[in-house]
Amino acid sequence: MNILIKNTRILTLATEKPEIILGDLGIENGMIVFIGESNASFTAKKIIDGSNALIMPGLINAHTHSSMSLMRNYADDLPFWPWLTEKIWPIEEHLTGEDCYWGAMLSIAEMIRSGITTFADMYFYMDDVAKAVDKTGIRANLSRGLVGGVDEDAKLKEAVEFKEKWHDSSNGRIRVELAPHAPYTCNAALMRRILEKSKVLDTRIHIHLSESKKEVEDSFRIHGKSPVQNLLEQKVFERPTFAVHCVHLSDEDIKILAENNVSVVNNPGSNMKLGNGFAPIQKLLEAGVNVALGTDGSSSNNNLNMFEEMNLAALVNKSIDADTTVVPAYTALKMGTINGAVALGIDQEVGTLEIGKKADLILIDLEKPHFYPRLNLVASLVYSAQASDVKTVICDGKILMENREILVFNEQEVFKKANDCAKRLITEIDSEV
Amino acid sequence: MNILIKNTRILTLATEKPEIILGDLGIENGMIVFIGESNASFTAKKIIDGSNALIMPGLINAHTHSSMSLMRNYADDLPFWPWLTEKIWPIEEHLTGEDCYWGAMLSIAEMIRSGITTFADMYFYMDDVAKAVDKTGIRANLSRGLVGGVDEDAKLKEAVEFKEKWHDSSNGRIRVELAPHAPYTCNAALMRRILEKSKVLDTRIHIHLSESKKEVEDSFRIHGKSPVQNLLEQKVFERPTFAVHCVHLSDEDIKILAENNVSVVNNPGSNMKLGNGFAPIQKLLEAGVNVALGTDGSSSNNNLNMFEEMNLAALVNKSIDADTTVVPAYTALKMGTINGAVALGIDQEVGTLEIGKKADLILIDLEKPHFYPRLNLVASLVYSAQASDVKTVICDGKILMENREILVFNEQEVFKKANDCAKRLITEIDSEV
Repeated sequence: MNILIKNTRILTLATEKPEIILGDLGIENGMIVFIGESNASFTAKKIIDGSNALIMPGLINAHTHSSMSLMRNYADDLPFWPWLTEKIWPIEEHLTGEDCYWGAMLSIAEMIRSGITTFADMYFYMDDVAKAVDKTGIRANLSRGLVGGVDEDAKLKEAVEFKEKWHDSSNGRIRVELAPHAPYTCNAALMRRILEKSKVLDTRIHIHLSESKKEVEDSFRIHGKSPVQNLLEQKVFERPTFAVHCVHLSDEDIKILAENNVSVVNNPGSNMKLGNGFAPIQKLLEAGVNVALGTDGSSSNNNLNMFEEMNLAALVNKSIDADTTVVPAYTALKMGTINGAVALGIDQEVGTLEIGKKADLILIDLEKPHFYPRLNLVASLVYSAQASDVKTVICDGKILMENREILVFNEQEVFKKANDCAKRLITEIDSEV
Repeated sequence: MNILIKNTRILTLATEKPEIILGDLGIENGMIVFIGESNASFTAKKIIDGSNALIMPGLINAHTHSSMSLMRNYADDLPFWPWLTEKIWPIEEHLTGEDCYWGAMLSIAEMIRSGITTFADMYFYMDDVAKAVDKTGIRANLSRGLVGGVDEDAKLKEAVEFKEKWHDSSNGRIRVELAPHAPYTCNAALMRRILEKSKVLDTRIHIHLSESKKEVEDSFRIHGKSPVQNLLEQKVFERPTFAVHCVHLSDEDIKILAENNVSVVNNPGSNMKLGNGFAPIQKLLEAGVNVALGTDGSSSNNNLNMFEEMNLAALVNKSIDADTTVVPAYTALKMGTINGAVALGIDQEVGTLEIGKKADLILIDLEKPHFYPRLNLVASLVYSAQASDVKTVICDGKILMENREILVFNEQEVFKKANDCAKRLITEIDSEV
């Protein structure tokens, strides 16, 4: 369907310095065909009034566990290990494919509402997550999380089959990666097998890295080296890799990440909530590392709001570094869009608004008190905006939400089903105690 | 007007542990007359359906400069001193009373939309700010900021006249305090005169304190003591005081604040954005200090969103202290409500939902993906909620916003007037350069 967005402000994110183009934007066959001046011969079936609005690329949530929305607000303000081992893991033991489907659907509803058009997911029952992505029209890089242990063969087989079944499906909206969970949960033998499969299947690597102080201390104790150094020596970085968290890094670690073109996915909200600290974002940026942003799962956040993450990234690093000039607004916006696309290897298709790119974009309603006075819209998107300012969401040229109404599925049904799944899981856990 | 809110969840904030009462809430003559079970003889002119919603006390923004919304997104990502001296101060030189009125109106629109029913303001042209408070139906503790210098006599006189004119007006919604701007901008002689007036007029003291590292270092250099110690020796704390920021405190400072019943107003968003660091909130709470929350002005935040501040307070302290149990959700909610009322000396009237208290309350729309599954509503208000979830706002028994429509003034006019004022100010500044 041809779509014309008229009389709007277009923040392309395609330029080194912020540039807002006034005019129209046209979409044909899911692609952006003009920006600014309308093509006279272009006829649109759908016209969207963009006055008093701004359009920008859809946000890219470069790390989450969408099905974990079922554990949102289930166990907060607890110490990290009891939270993980006594609350999260027991629930995960009881999860079914249907649970993971409804958990993913709930997360997708929330992500569409907050302007996210692509997410990277690492979890299990990924077939069910892929079905949710297929149905809803959102874009996703999916991977079956791989943890060593008795059933590691079956999991790796499942991951490979998942890739063969779903990669590049749903008009290319679904990509599949391999995801060794973390250096401390995959031993060298398993990691080697995953890397071999990654080469054969031509996938990226999605991995948690240096999230907690304990992980780094354990790594030095066991291997005599940092987790980053460990992955380097295991040749993980010979595959295109996006590494998530990277909170506790030495200067040497940062150098390794930069030299090996590893993308880092910063999750400021989750890192703070789990008491893990603050990633050295400014140092990573200065070293030339591509830094993207993610929400992590909503059981450790507790929402999927990339406007919050962009705001946090811009704010917290200023105080950590005692320097108000670090992570300026435009950098935070890039972290939330094009840098995510680079991390996920889809920057030729999405992440900026350019002619020939896929039409993944969001329309921001500027008729809110916090967007006045109109002095600097780029700053206002990072320092003043809220996820609920997203009015309309287009992904792959299809309208997923219009005027805050989700068009592609029944949201009420999703709320009810996800709630029922969560309540059932907790009843099952409680009956075991 | 009698108001009945039916079939709802009522988070009173009046109990030590979280308690949610299911049922109705009645309002008569601006006061809460029942909670839970309806009074059979109660007849309401207005009935609000509270199903699928939660009501809680209106949020208390215990520190802002409402007129500074005119400088929102005017100068971001700059070093602190150039920001203040080259950007903010020149604009302030040009401000008129009319500017301050429209700036305050814009801030009040934003605050009502995000569930704030009371704010504490320190600025100038306070007569115009008071007019905005009077008109809009919000509650406020107002004070004329006092800075030493050639015109300090005139300013103090203005502050006293402002108190005499406005204190306890607008059905008691407006309170007036005295506000020595900061220890470093008021010398001992001026501070003495302010304190004398505060005693005679029976006002609280609203003051900035230990915001930046520079302020503390300068204080030691000039006075040989910390700003807190300095105020103690000047006997400021003999007056009921709420001290704003308190980022850089020694253990001795914390002890002084606790022993003198000084309330601390934490502004995590502003402190981060201006690169000032993180206040030692857990230490303050452990010492028994009453800690409230504020947004600061929206030129250094850049919005007036207390849901963001509660979220930041809960999140950032967990990572600063590497302890996920600090500032749990219920503590953050108290910081945003009743602790603010204590700081402002209005806790007998507002800050919790209790029979006999004034009806300052907000209705949260729970029909959002981030409120599912329904596992812990208290946690969800701090970790998942967004300001835009506030559906209806009642202050002093009057409905200010219903179903996200502001009923008490023309919001579009406010946007236009505030925008015009800001654009004119910038033109005036630019023509000077």
